[in-house]
Amino acid sequence: MSSLDALAENLPEGRLLTDPDVIDSYARDRTFLEPGKALAVVLARTRDDVVTTMRWASEHRVPVVPRGAGTGLAGGATASEGSVILSLARMTAITELSPADEIAVVEPGVITADLDRAAREHGLMYAPDPSSYEISTIGGNLATNAGGLRCVKYGVTRDSALGLEVVLADGRVLNTGRRTMKGVTGYDLTGLFVGSEGTLGVITSATVRLRRAPAAPPATFAAEFGSLRDAAAAVSAIMAAGCQPSLMEMLDRATLKAIDDWRNIGLEDSTQAMLIGQSDAADSQAAITRMGQLCGAGGASFVAVSSTPAEAEELIAVRRMAYQAKERLGACLVEDVCVPRSALPDMISAIEAAAARHGVMICTVAHAGDGNLHPVFVFDHGTAEPPAQVWAAADEVFTKALEFGGTLTGEHGVGVLKRRWLSLESGPVAADVQQGIKAVFDPLGILNPGKAI
Amino acid sequence: MSSLDALAENLPEGRLLTDPDVIDSYARDRTFLEPGKALAVVLARTRDDVVTTMRWASEHRVPVVPRGAGTGLAGGATASEGSVILSLARMTAITELSPADEIAVVEPGVITADLDRAAREHGLMYAPDPSSYEISTIGGNLATNAGGLRCVKYGVTRDSALGLEVVLADGRVLNTGRRTMKGVTGYDLTGLFVGSEGTLGVITSATVRLRRAPAAPPATFAAEFGSLRDAAAAVSAIMAAGCQPSLMEMLDRATLKAIDDWRNIGLEDSTQAMLIGQSDAADSQAAITRMGQLCGAGGASFVAVSSTPAEAEELIAVRRMAYQAKERLGACLVEDVCVPRSALPDMISAIEAAAARHGVMICTVAHAGDGNLHPVFVFDHGTAEPPAQVWAAADEVFTKALEFGGTLTGEHGVGVLKRRWLSLESGPVAADVQQGIKAVFDPLGILNPGKAI
Repeated sequence: MSSLDALAENLPEGRLLTDPDVIDSYARDRTFLEPGKALAVVLARTRDDVVTTMRWASEHRVPVVPRGAGTGLAGGATASEGSVILSLARMTAITELSPADEIAVVEPGVITADLDRAAREHGLMYAPDPSSYEISTIGGNLATNAGGLRCVKYGVTRDSALGLEVVLADGRVLNTGRRTMKGVTGYDLTGLFVGSEGTLGVITSATVRLRRAPAAPPATFAAEFGSLRDAAAAVSAIMAAGCQPSLMEMLDRATLKAIDDWRNIGLEDSTQAMLIGQSDAADSQAAITRMGQLCGAGGASFVAVSSTPAEAEELIAVRRMAYQAKERLGACLVEDVCVPRSALPDMISAIEAAAARHGVMICTVAHAGDGNLHPVFVFDHGTAEPPAQVWAAADEVFTKALEFGGTLTGEHGVGVLKRRWLSLESGPVAADVQQGIKAVFDPLGILNPGKAI
Repeated sequence: MSSLDALAENLPEGRLLTDPDVIDSYARDRTFLEPGKALAVVLARTRDDVVTTMRWASEHRVPVVPRGAGTGLAGGATASEGSVILSLARMTAITELSPADEIAVVEPGVITADLDRAAREHGLMYAPDPSSYEISTIGGNLATNAGGLRCVKYGVTRDSALGLEVVLADGRVLNTGRRTMKGVTGYDLTGLFVGSEGTLGVITSATVRLRRAPAAPPATFAAEFGSLRDAAAAVSAIMAAGCQPSLMEMLDRATLKAIDDWRNIGLEDSTQAMLIGQSDAADSQAAITRMGQLCGAGGASFVAVSSTPAEAEELIAVRRMAYQAKERLGACLVEDVCVPRSALPDMISAIEAAAARHGVMICTVAHAGDGNLHPVFVFDHGTAEPPAQVWAAADEVFTKALEFGGTLTGEHGVGVLKRRWLSLESGPVAADVQQGIKAVFDPLGILNPGKAI
């Protein structure tokens, strides 16, 4: 423990925690993965704490696992054996918020929804809104390039990241990017760190882009379909008509059934899928009416269009219940494939086929406007990790997504869970290049080893 | 010449050109820079031609300078001494255009405006529109992360790049990115290649995002101001009001004077600046009327709002004349600083001060909505390169841009011209990291040496 003493000596009082229960509470994310035994937790409050930790870790060759709120779904923040866990959750300052330049400078521990609320006081918004955004941090969102519901209109986290301050593995401080809307000086290091899952450096500050907030709350429609293919075709028709939804979600029958069993939403026997869409445009009511019409023309058995914010809230509430409804049924492996939008119906069919073939319950919710599907594999609550047939079904789903020109992960990241499928998507040249980049930033291999690439 | 013979032997007939006049015609971009003496030009027609060239270049350690149409403004495509010039201009296939998935797959030599036109046949558009887009190529746009007039609404080239096929320095073929709207597998190699100015690999195919084209032609306003600060304040007011212009350009008095001397646009003595804005939204007429009103409220001496497409064309024609009008006055060094939007008035004042202090004519046009300014330094036509006082004034402009939190280059790239200022913006850690990345992709240093970083 002498090397840990050296770290304790260089950090302010109370920043290094070695109580096993405390360590355990910082060792997991939202997956079932069992963490390795970590040495300690550093609760960083300043960039200097991070510098001190990384210098020490480089000197002593101790692995470091950076983390935000631990809401990840791929195991990226799971503690490694013999590691020091570096929590950024206490670095919560919004350092600057400039309405004139439409940017904010934030520490990594800022809760995403808090930044959005702060921006809205100035008529602005922070667009990226992963479902976890009330509990997840900007740092974690950046590390995973988190998506969300509004992506379909506003893009993912990377699209809002302008510049970063990063502490490198050896403790040097790197500034990337800029405060301006455009800029092409040097390689795009900002984009490289976004989505790198803590394997290239530790983000200690971010300059993010804000956008004008819509003047009024969004208008919403919901539509029920007797076939998933009809629902998927309606999504295509809506996008092709230039309706620009700010949210476009699809729920399959298994998900609707789980919600209905819990909250009795009056699900019809014939309903196979539901679409829920929003518009936050100036002409949102007209846009949403048009989307509803397109659903009707596309064979929807039922279409509801909100005419008040309260009605809009009711329609979207069904989508919000989805995950909790599934958790009632069992333990959940949440997956995250993304396909070209035209492949959405085939991908859904493939998921259903995999569920049937392997006797696994799969409930699917999709950010349908982006072609991003979350098939949730449900298994027994008592089981420590997904049984073999779940992995077999997941394997089939991943393989099919790649066949359709898609990707293993649209917004959750590779973490630990998806590494075994990585070579199928990336191929040997990309793997080689990525290892080369990793070695530039982290020659000792101490930053979040065994994750992401 | 025996090593060149080996290359000729492995390429199809007619792809390797060694005529000195031909070489000379491929050795320059749009800067005044005098190229080094190149050995030959490869006119690639296929990916295999590029692979053959790079394998040969690695074996014989010959520098390779990739190029598209040579419309660059920073010297990125200027031939190096002893290099082989690798032209991608003959790889002009639009391999795929999928309206359903809103993507296209294109070879690097496709002219940018040609892709836009092909997309519009399907109700789509390719958004990035550098001023050169009728003569520049997608490959060159990707290599420089080109901007353009529509950036203010649709973002830069990187924002439309989903995936790339790249031939590495050693001839291996790397596929990056994806065909989907979202995806977080591995590091963002696509973003890394975009803007790398041919120093990391040679792009042989790109998957790009298309967007819905506006239903009607854009509506346009033009406004004249007695002060640059008032014009800049009007830009801020327009952006803050959420008007979402699809173009927002500012012309200074020096530029307007050059245009007036040439084409007599009836410039008033009191006019110090002109704003020209467009909206391509569904409610474009209302949006543009509102923008005009905001200019009026902000002290504009004259405001014109188009009510027909022909009137819109007349208003934007003034902007289109800007560069040609300046070229009549002398040789031009076109610069490209970008500042946070709130610094726009101060940056313009700083440019005027530099012009006065160094006795240099500077005409400025700005993509004002993005804070991206193009101060054009005018000097004697007969001069081979910019005289000392031009560089002194440019130095002052760059230094001020950085002081205001800005960047040396918003959309043109570093190339050769801006390398001497690079360390002021990036600092030693970023420089070190970028050299490390360069070494991963190009350990022999044969790809466009002496450029970009």
